[in-house]
Amino acid sequence: MSAEQPQQAVVLVSGGLDSATVLAIARSRGFDVYALSFDYGQRHAFELEAARRVCAANSVERHVIFPLDLRVFGGSALTADMPVPKDRSDEQMSAGIPITYVPARNTIFLSVALGWAEALSARDIFLGVNAVDYSGYPDCRPEFLDAFARLADLGTKVGVEGTGTWTIHAPLISLTKAEIIRQGRALGVDYSITHSCYDPDESGRPCGRCDSCRLRLKGFAEAGLEDPLAYPLW
Amino acid sequence: MSAEQPQQAVVLVSGGLDSATVLAIARSRGFDVYALSFDYGQRHAFELEAARRVCAANSVERHVIFPLDLRVFGGSALTADMPVPKDRSDEQMSAGIPITYVPARNTIFLSVALGWAEALSARDIFLGVNAVDYSGYPDCRPEFLDAFARLADLGTKVGVEGTGTWTIHAPLISLTKAEIIRQGRALGVDYSITHSCYDPDESGRPCGRCDSCRLRLKGFAEAGLEDPLAYPLW
Repeated sequence: MSAEQPQQAVVLVSGGLDSATVLAIARSRGFDVYALSFDYGQRHAFELEAARRVCAANSVERHVIFPLDLRVFGGSALTADMPVPKDRSDEQMSAGIPITYVPARNTIFLSVALGWAEALSARDIFLGVNAVDYSGYPDCRPEFLDAFARLADLGTKVGVEGTGTWTIHAPLISLTKAEIIRQGRALGVDYSITHSCYDPDESGRPCGRCDSCRLRLKGFAEAGLEDPLAYPLW
Repeated sequence: MSAEQPQQAVVLVSGGLDSATVLAIARSRGFDVYALSFDYGQRHAFELEAARRVCAANSVERHVIFPLDLRVFGGSALTADMPVPKDRSDEQMSAGIPITYVPARNTIFLSVALGWAEALSARDIFLGVNAVDYSGYPDCRPEFLDAFARLADLGTKVGVEGTGTWTIHAPLISLTKAEIIRQGRALGVDYSITHSCYDPDESGRPCGRCDSCRLRLKGFAEAGLEDPLAYPLW
């Protein structure tokens, strides 16, 4: 890809640490970014405010917040009236599929991204999935992403016309949280405007105790850096 | 599957002739039906009224009309401000991908169905795609559906836990429109409550001239039956 002909990419932006890093990576690779966030009824809707901030800070071509209310189906602590687990150990977090798993969420998000990307004539989609810290989520695994790329090749115009193939970019998939943070910092990502907590207080302040907060804090600690977010004092 | 233990299935119901037939087939195979329709900004929103009628006539367990506004992305005559083609010949209809193709629509619809089905602990999804009359749509082909089933196996809990596999049922995929109509009639489908037109008038009356109307009328003619819908007089 030459600098004279920037390509378009749809980037899934949740407003969290990972997707903010992925957005910076897509920009650093020369892509014009079409950012896609989902208002899916998540209890941590503060992340959409973070998504807006992250997109504003990164000169995206367009930012769409797509309404897609998964609460109608339930089945997850993030979309139904279930408590979010707190204070789980590393062992607990890596054992089995957590109840914060949202049924088929990444399949749904990637599919909508595919629709937008095809309408744009783009062939690249970026997302911040990670198979190290989220080993319990079936839809964060490399084999899932490979299967999605194959599906995209078959299910869109390029598959009939033979005019190209899709690339699903998951640049964080094999990185630790500390490695992600170091790479983001090197690219100038401002993590103070991101949001990771599954269960923030009314002002949007992170709980510091859910799986997402714990992974984030551990990542900053291992990277030898301080998380710029303000956590409660324990 | 025994009659004593009905299984659950999510059935995509557009309100058209094909999906009404598929719903009847799913019921005839003993499934409890969870019907899913999409309000995706289609210009032929009358089909949602038809979807309601079809579900009411078929004792479904639940009918969800899921808002998913694809107009934000455009790219199709069904979701953007483009004219719907009329009076095309069979040759024209079978040449290339028509502009009524909605980017990644079946991928998106199947993904949302997958999310609901997983939340229900179902393993079966039915849809009315057809590879005979819609040969130009990439996401109506058997290889696309096979790829989606593979994706579903990898991207949901069963893929990690090894507790089952998904079945994507497309019972109409190799039938002609006439064969679909005959099968539906044998199952007691009332086609007078269905809606197929891409471009109905203000009262919901079909145009009789778009690809969808022409395929429907041709199907009834070849089946030796009369379409119960009222068309304009030419």
